[in-house]
Amino acid sequence: MNKTIYLDNAATTPMCEEAVQAFTESLAPSFYNPSALYKPADGVVAKIQNDRGFLLSMLHASSGGELYFTSGGTESNNTVLFGSKKKKGCRIIVGAGEHDSVIMPANELKNQGYDVQFAPIDRFGRVDIEKFAELLTPDTALVSVMHASNETGAINDIAEISRMTHRVQPSAIVHSDGVQAFMKLKVNLPLLDVDAYSVAAHKLYGPKGIGALILKNGVKIKPLLLGGGQEKKFRSGTESYPLIHSFAAAVDHCAANFDKNISKISKYREYLLQKLNENIDDIVVLTPMDRSVPNILTVAFKDIRGEVLLHALEDYGILVGIGSACSSHHESRFKKLLKLDGAHSEGIVRFSMSEQNEIDEVDYVADCIAKVYRKLSEFKRI
Amino acid sequence: MNKTIYLDNAATTPMCEEAVQAFTESLAPSFYNPSALYKPADGVVAKIQNDRGFLLSMLHASSGGELYFTSGGTESNNTVLFGSKKKKGCRIIVGAGEHDSVIMPANELKNQGYDVQFAPIDRFGRVDIEKFAELLTPDTALVSVMHASNETGAINDIAEISRMTHRVQPSAIVHSDGVQAFMKLKVNLPLLDVDAYSVAAHKLYGPKGIGALILKNGVKIKPLLLGGGQEKKFRSGTESYPLIHSFAAAVDHCAANFDKNISKISKYREYLLQKLNENIDDIVVLTPMDRSVPNILTVAFKDIRGEVLLHALEDYGILVGIGSACSSHHESRFKKLLKLDGAHSEGIVRFSMSEQNEIDEVDYVADCIAKVYRKLSEFKRI
Repeated sequence: MNKTIYLDNAATTPMCEEAVQAFTESLAPSFYNPSALYKPADGVVAKIQNDRGFLLSMLHASSGGELYFTSGGTESNNTVLFGSKKKKGCRIIVGAGEHDSVIMPANELKNQGYDVQFAPIDRFGRVDIEKFAELLTPDTALVSVMHASNETGAINDIAEISRMTHRVQPSAIVHSDGVQAFMKLKVNLPLLDVDAYSVAAHKLYGPKGIGALILKNGVKIKPLLLGGGQEKKFRSGTESYPLIHSFAAAVDHCAANFDKNISKISKYREYLLQKLNENIDDIVVLTPMDRSVPNILTVAFKDIRGEVLLHALEDYGILVGIGSACSSHHESRFKKLLKLDGAHSEGIVRFSMSEQNEIDEVDYVADCIAKVYRKLSEFKRI
Repeated sequence: MNKTIYLDNAATTPMCEEAVQAFTESLAPSFYNPSALYKPADGVVAKIQNDRGFLLSMLHASSGGELYFTSGGTESNNTVLFGSKKKKGCRIIVGAGEHDSVIMPANELKNQGYDVQFAPIDRFGRVDIEKFAELLTPDTALVSVMHASNETGAINDIAEISRMTHRVQPSAIVHSDGVQAFMKLKVNLPLLDVDAYSVAAHKLYGPKGIGALILKNGVKIKPLLLGGGQEKKFRSGTESYPLIHSFAAAVDHCAANFDKNISKISKYREYLLQKLNENIDDIVVLTPMDRSVPNILTVAFKDIRGEVLLHALEDYGILVGIGSACSSHHESRFKKLLKLDGAHSEGIVRFSMSEQNEIDEVDYVADCIAKVYRKLSEFKRI
């Protein structure tokens, strides 16, 4: 194939046309600083409110929550981890397989003297509910478990985690990083019953540099950025309406084609897995196919390094990930947690699809993987 | 005039064509996550490095400094205020007239038990050097004084402030908020000799949502956002190359037309002031014309409220500010500091020009102001 086949959409997505258009079209008419006092600035404020309302509605949180724009998932996660109310030394529980933007703040809080516990994950990267229950104590102030794993796509039972937490400590803040779940699943925040939820635009065909943090009404989190008091004093800094509007347009795009695209992506994933199983012996599937976002398929190949496979596939125009892009340049914490056998532990590859992938690519992709895998396996055990 | 005359460029600027083009053109070819391991991602990393190098060169800091991209001026300022190394209870000095994104973190640090001192400002909004000197003690750990005032455009003598500080305490961090100065002045960081300097794109025809913090080599500041370790572990979060490249293109645009545009804007300002003085009695000029950025003219009108004048001018298609947009909706701290007489204290209006203003607008603007001012003054003392 002449074109590049991009299968790393969990790392980031290209912007959809609607998002690009929303950005460019809002530049000239809506460049005003929303904090200014003249009418055109009020107009920008109204437009931001409109997009905010739309995004809240897409999370079924129009009446029960507030949405604050941030620079992205990392800022949203950091804001909750550092800003949630907690007494010195209290317990904080985060999933062991969380994104680095939760793990690193958790490590920092541990250094500051908090009793930070990492909830063990199962072989699919999901928080083990029974082990999680054992960690819950009445002095638990904060729980942070991602909605869908960026490594395997596995969905955590956030509603159950929230229920269990609030049974033990009603005032504990339950946060979920929804960056990989939003617009891959139909997210209903009241059903999840979380206090805080993070989303980012660039995982769903929106621009990089914008995300949001949704807080349940009444939840108090200290702001991370202080200043002009934008976003109801929760997040200072001049609002970027073009980014906000582009984010909303991307979500609108996803919503308009949701069922069709999710079905398309799911079929792509099913077929890719079927072909991989046909072509290659002894792969370990790390994605729980019946309980995951539909766009991620993570497998561990035997006796090969994921990175070697990644580079070999690149020669065929196929771009894949080997887990979280953000931690790809340093040793992955995650793969150790899965407790894979030695033959598979280095062979993790993440395929993450988008609506732009076509089912007729799958044979080519699967054939290339088989070819490359065979060649590399014959050559040596790398 | 039929068109809107925008004179609030210190609040924010419209994006220049080059910045828009840089954004849109980089979307498709460079959307990859820079942390991914394949070559197209490396290509984005290289492009980011290229823009980083260009921006550093525009600050004369290619060899002596590191530049870290942030979401804007507020984040850059917050990062320095909160992240600079300081012992409990040590002294922190910030200008009394700083932007809220410095003042609010300073207030928070004061609450945390630091000895925060606000350096008094003179009638032009400049830090009073003699009074500043009196505040310096050997346990001063951090000094933050803006390069140019967002309220009056007045330039602070940052080089002298840095010299004085380091004479008393060589290891103190000297930070300057350069948001209003960068690309309005030829900023030379080695000459200013600051340890940290903040800039933002949307004040210089770039996009909202991107800025930078420049640190002198060897200066250690704790990151505000933790996670994937982007920006050499100093600022986590997926980099937005389109925003970065657009920022660089805006700076390039400013640099290419620097002398011509600064001269044009200066003439506009001179002529506007001349006309105001001709048409209206007893205005107080708050901008030190010989020692300010060339784009800001702040004056106090007698016996009138700035906000009333702002709205009246809006009816004539003229958009102006009444000081910092960010604090426009709450009582301005700043105007109290200037110690204006009672007749002028409420009448502050900030005119901030851009290259897009034309000299032939000035007569119209000055005439409208005179007309509106006369009408409002006759009607009542508001």
